[in-house]
Parts: sequence; structure tokens; C-alpha cells
Amino acid sequence: PSSKLPSVGLTIFSQMTALANQQKAINLSQGFPDFDGPKPLLDAVGRFIAEGKNQYAPMAGLPELCQAVSDKVFRCYGRKLEAESEVTITSGATEAIFAAISATVNAGDEVIVFDPAYDSYEPAVTLNGGTTVHIPLLPPQFAIDFQRLQDAITLRTRMIIFNSPHNPTGSVMSSEDLLQLEQLLEGTNILLLSDEVYEHIIFDNQVHQSFNRSPMLAERSFIVSSFGKTYHVTGWKVGYCVAPEALMKEFRKVHQYLTFSTSTPMQAAIAEYMQSDAEHDQNLPVFYQQKRDLMNERLSSSRFGIMPSPGTYFQLLDYTAISDLSDQEFVLWLLKEAGVATIPLSPFYKDGTQTGMVRLCFAKSSDTLEKAAEQLCRI
Amino acid sequence: PSSKLPSVGLTIFSQMTALANQQKAINLSQGFPDFDGPKPLLDAVGRFIAEGKNQYAPMAGLPELCQAVSDKVFRCYGRKLEAESEVTITSGATEAIFAAISATVNAGDEVIVFDPAYDSYEPAVTLNGGTTVHIPLLPPQFAIDFQRLQDAITLRTRMIIFNSPHNPTGSVMSSEDLLQLEQLLEGTNILLLSDEVYEHIIFDNQVHQSFNRSPMLAERSFIVSSFGKTYHVTGWKVGYCVAPEALMKEFRKVHQYLTFSTSTPMQAAIAEYMQSDAEHDQNLPVFYQQKRDLMNERLSSSRFGIMPSPGTYFQLLDYTAISDLSDQEFVLWLLKEAGVATIPLSPFYKDGTQTGMVRLCFAKSSDTLEKAAEQLCRI
Ligand SMILES: CSCCC(=O)C(=O)O
Ligand SMILES: CSCCC(=O)C(=O)O
Repeated sequence: PSSKLPSVGLTIFSQMTALANQQKAINLSQGFPDFDGPKPLLDAVGRFIAEGKNQYAPMAGLPELCQAVSDKVFRCYGRKLEAESEVTITSGATEAIFAAISATVNAGDEVIVFDPAYDSYEPAVTLNGGTTVHIPLLPPQFAIDFQRLQDAITLRTRMIIFNSPHNPTGSVMSSEDLLQLEQLLEGTNILLLSDEVYEHIIFDNQVHQSFNRSPMLAERSFIVSSFGKTYHVTGWKVGYCVAPEALMKEFRKVHQYLTFSTSTPMQAAIAEYMQSDAEHDQNLPVFYQQKRDLMNERLSSSRFGIMPSPGTYFQLLDYTAISDLSDQEFVLWLLKEAGVATIPLSPFYKDGTQTGMVRLCFAKSSDTLEKAAEQLCRI
Repeated sequence: PSSKLPSVGLTIFSQMTALANQQKAINLSQGFPDFDGPKPLLDAVGRFIAEGKNQYAPMAGLPELCQAVSDKVFRCYGRKLEAESEVTITSGATEAIFAAISATVNAGDEVIVFDPAYDSYEPAVTLNGGTTVHIPLLPPQFAIDFQRLQDAITLRTRMIIFNSPHNPTGSVMSSEDLLQLEQLLEGTNILLLSDEVYEHIIFDNQVHQSFNRSPMLAERSFIVSSFGKTYHVTGWKVGYCVAPEALMKEFRKVHQYLTFSTSTPMQAAIAEYMQSDAEHDQNLPVFYQQKRDLMNERLSSSRFGIMPSPGTYFQLLDYTAISDLSDQEFVLWLLKEAGVATIPLSPFYKDGTQTGMVRLCFAKSSDTLEKAAEQLCRI
């Protein structure tokens, strides 16, 4: 039989990081920092390993980490969660997304996604026999068009996937968006998957509109986040999902056969760190806004158009004043000419829409950002 | 809609470990050691973290770890693998099993499993719209009946799942079994999933019949193993899969959306350790055989029947001389009366066959084993 995912190749993130390494370019493509997480967090892993925390964690996660997540969600969004039944620790947010979809999407179901969309949503739906229905987010704001959303809903709509702050565009949902969504879902059984991995990376004094804030949305939502993004350790692959008990029960049935459990010493380290430092999260907006602003200030003399980026550690650049190459061609050209690896926007669209934009990741040291900006300004 | 896995509950491993902890019993249920892995391996993780190896590993695994696996497979089984295209590092063997099944099993496909079977095979098949066909392994040897296997094959048979050394019975496949399997598969397109997580835990001078030894089997096999089992660090959740390039290509399509990649510092530590110490694996048979023999010697004066256990770190005990309770009831009774947690055998059978046997894990310190045996002898 033929491939179950015939149109899937190596992700654009893997492709661009490999090219960047090969050509010794500055890698602003795949989303990861070039600096380290908090030292107490890093130090804790080795300590827990030495103490013998090396065997299976409980399937749902270490109780102390589930509790720390629950405390955090209450502190940040005012939602009270049962740590035992409504939080599960996963092997990265990617696993959480896959598990949520596998637990609930059946053959023939429709799942609505917004394009540009993170690349893992659609294959997870496809593998479960569902189909994705794609709604475009329109530049420059990439805001949700609720009329289009309403029109896309059918009797077969099982789930809608949201992602705020939004990768790759940096757009964020407003409190008005949440209200509109509540109205739209009234009287339906549609489930939500809210990918909030950049929940703490939001700028210009805006407030993250977590679905945890809305009881009406939360009762039908899988809300996913990532310790890797928040604590600058993307390679540790620890994330989590929160959901009401009935949904979480189904989620865990899948999770327990997908990976069963997640690295014990890393969970222990993250739990300890979260209990000792609640400020890290609160400082992230300023920390990353400085980086965004530095990058954009340095790029202001370039020929790139700088798109709004109210959240995430990504920035879209409009290159239409420079070139009429396709997004993918331009990225390769830029890599060669400027020695900077970025991500084309078109692969995030189901239909390969050409946008004249590329995404860069500014989760980098000032030195890296300044050097990259200098090289990009020469174009 | 109703559950996609209606008959799935919390795994028997999670249930029994929770009960053991709650009742402060000796936990010989879930399969994990109560001692630690090699110190150089444990120490390496903290060092790699301090050195900054904290961002995404490549999707397929760190090249040095893929190479170490390839070297090991050549050293142990004489098979030459391309580290780049035929090895993938996964978030535990569980992820590898799920990815192999998801990558290849389509709606309507049949997958043959042998009962008693490890609990993750069937739900993975079910989630992919396939059905499992169950063939019993008969005590006391729990050997494969090739006539029954032959009879179970239909035009819809997509895959057969093997597991040697076998959890929960400890049985191992012989070289004769591999030959019979080769003959049986001649002229078919049936795929194989070979769960070899206990590949290095085999006793009485027997040789592990890895599917890596047979070119004819290997060309259609996903072969899965576990660093957690081999290095006594089940909680690190790092495993791997090897498969020929065409199968691995499909496997990676799923893996990249299931978890994307696996803990970077742990991969780095395992790679370094494997390069520095090839003897650990070779010493495992003696190491665990001593434990098995100690346990069984101490149990010889008990009323349990001791089943043959040529491999894995599990031992089946026949309790029919003690009780006519069901397997599950007996395990609860034993927990209460002897203060020792074991695993009932019946949940490993699709049809819940009552066996009069329980499984214990002897991957424990001598002290633990002696104490457990003493308590079991009082029964
Ligand atoms: C899992 S690799 C992709 C990382 C990421 O979030 C991105 O670059 O968008
Ligand atoms: C993943 S929990 C189960 C561990 C194990 O292999 C067993 O006990 O059989």
C-alpha cells in the first residue's frame, strides 16, 4: 500500500536547520533559543539523576509537576484545575497536540485550522481519518475572520484548532475574539484545541487570552503548552495539556500508548524550578520584546517590510520590495546572499499560497541578532 | 461521540504501581529496576546540559547516537545499517511501536499479535482503524505455533507483531522460529514489528534471535529497542527503531508529528556511554540471570510453581496450588497477604483468559528480592 501521508516530507524546520548548519549560516529558521535556560533549572536535572529519579514517572506526570501547572494556570488565568485529573505532562507540546487529536477525531470528521498553520495539525488529523478545513488568516493582522469560521462549520465539524500567540505570524487573539468564539459555539458540541505554547511571550502590554480564562471555552478545550518554549530548553521535550476530566480521560488513553510517560528527572527539575521562581514567566514579555525591538530597529534601514509581531518569538518580513521570487526560492537565495537562514511562509498554507514573506526567529543573543540584521541590511 | 478506545482503562502497570505505593508493598509489578544505571552515563546528562545541549535534537536523532546504534547492531547481529536513513531515536520504545503501526496500518487492515501480548499493540492498531487477530501462546513454553499463525493470515494481514524475549512470559524465539517465519512470509508483503526491548536480557547461554540477523525478515521489519531497559533508566524514555530506508521514511513522517524529537542531553549521554562501554550489554545476561536464579532459589520452598524464564526480567509464577481465585483477584489478595505487588497475566489476553499465573519483575536489588521471596514463601 502507498504512504499514509503521501504529501509529507521532512519539515521545513528540519530542512532549514540542516541547510543553515551545512552552510554555516546564522540560523534564524527553526524556533529555538541560542541561549540557555535558568541555571537552577539546568542544575537540577543532574541532581535528580544522581538522587536516582531515573525510573518511569507516573503516566499522567509527576504529581508535583501537575500541581505546579495547576498553580500556574490559577495564578495566570484564574482557572482552578484538579492537578490529578485535568493536567497531563507530555513529551513536548507536539505529543500533546497529537494525543488530543487522536483521542477525539474520528474517520470522516472535519477539523478547522487557520492558515498559515503550524505543520503538525494536519498530519495528525489525516492519520486519524479526518480532514482539515482551512480558513485563511489575512495579512497584515492575520486576525480570525469569524464570519468565515461560521461558514466553515458543518455537522461534521469535530474540532477547531487555535494557536495564540500565533506561529508563524505572531498575531494574538483578543478578548473580543474569545467572546465571538463563545457565541459561535453556543449550542454546538465542537471541541477546541488551543495551542498556547507561546503563552508567556506577548508584547506591548497585551494580555494573553488563554482559553483557560473562559469557562465556556475551557470546558470543551484541550489547552497545550510547552516548558521548552517557556524555559529555553526546547530539546528537553516536555510539555503539557490541560482539559476537563472527561476529555482528559480520553487524552490519557492515547498518551499512555503513545509515549506512556515523560522523562522523570526533567519533570522533577521543572517542577522544582516552577515552585521556586514564578517570576521567570512574568519576565518573558520584556525579555523577548527587547529582542524583537532590537532586531526590528536594526532592520529598519533594510529593504524588508517589518510586519506587526505582537507575540511569539517570530517576526515576519515582507520581501516584495526586494524580489519576486517565490517564498521558498527567496529563502534559499537569502541564505546564500545574506548567510541567514529563515523560514518561508508558504509551506504553512495548505494550498501553498505565496505571501512574499519569510519568518525569522529572534530568540537569539543580541550579538546574533545584530550580526544577522547587519547581513540582512546588505540585501 | 463515544470513546475511540472504549475498553481501555488505566494500564495494569499504572494500577499496580499505584496500589503498591499506597500500601507500601514491595513493588515487583511494573517492569523497572530499583537500582541505577552506570554512573558515567548518569553523570553525562548534567554535563551535556551544562555545556548547553538543550535545544531540539535532529528529528531522527543525534547523529552520534544513530551511529552508536548502527555500530551496536553490527557488533551484535552482523547487520550493516545506514545510521542516517535506517535508525531513528524515539521517546521510548512505546513511541517507536506506536509510530511503526501508525505509519503502516490502514483502516481495515489486520494485525496479528500473540497473546499474552504487551498492552500497547492493540490500542495503536485500533486507533489506526485496523483490527488485531489474536493467537494464543501456550504454557508452559509459550512458543509460537506456526500452524496457527499460517491459518490466521488473510489477504488483509498487514503486519505481525513479535516480541522476543517476551513480556510477560520470558519466552524467547529460536533460530528455528526465524527460519519458519522466513518460509511462511515467502511471497507475501506482510510487514513485521519486532519488539526487542529485552534484547540483551537472555539467559542460560542462549542467543537473542534478533530479526536483524535475518536479511529476509529485516527487509520488512521495524525492530524496536529501549535504552531504558538496557541501561536501567526506564524513566528517561529513550528508545529506537531500525528499519530499511523505505519503511523508515514512512516511520519518520509519523515520528516528526508525534514527538518531533527526543531529549537532546539524554541522547548525547547515551551516545557517549555506548561509545565508551560496549561491555555493559554483554554483561547483562549474567547480571540478570543471577537475580532470576536468586529469586527462584528462594522461592523453591514456596507453594508457587516456577515457570521457565529464559529471557526478560520477568518471571511467571503458577499459583494454582495456592488458590483458585482469578488472576486479578489473586494479585490483590497477594498484595494484601504477602505485601508484594505483582501483575496478573489475564489482562495480557484479549479474551481475558484465566491462567492461574502472575508475573513478577526481578530487576531488583538482592535485598529486595530476598525480602519479597521471604514474604511470598509465607503464603
Ligand atoms: C519542532 S521544530 C519547529 C519548532 C517551531 O516551533 C518552529 O520553528 O515553528
Ligand atoms: C510502560 S509501563 C510497563 C513497563 C513494562 O514494560 C512492563 O511492566 O511490562
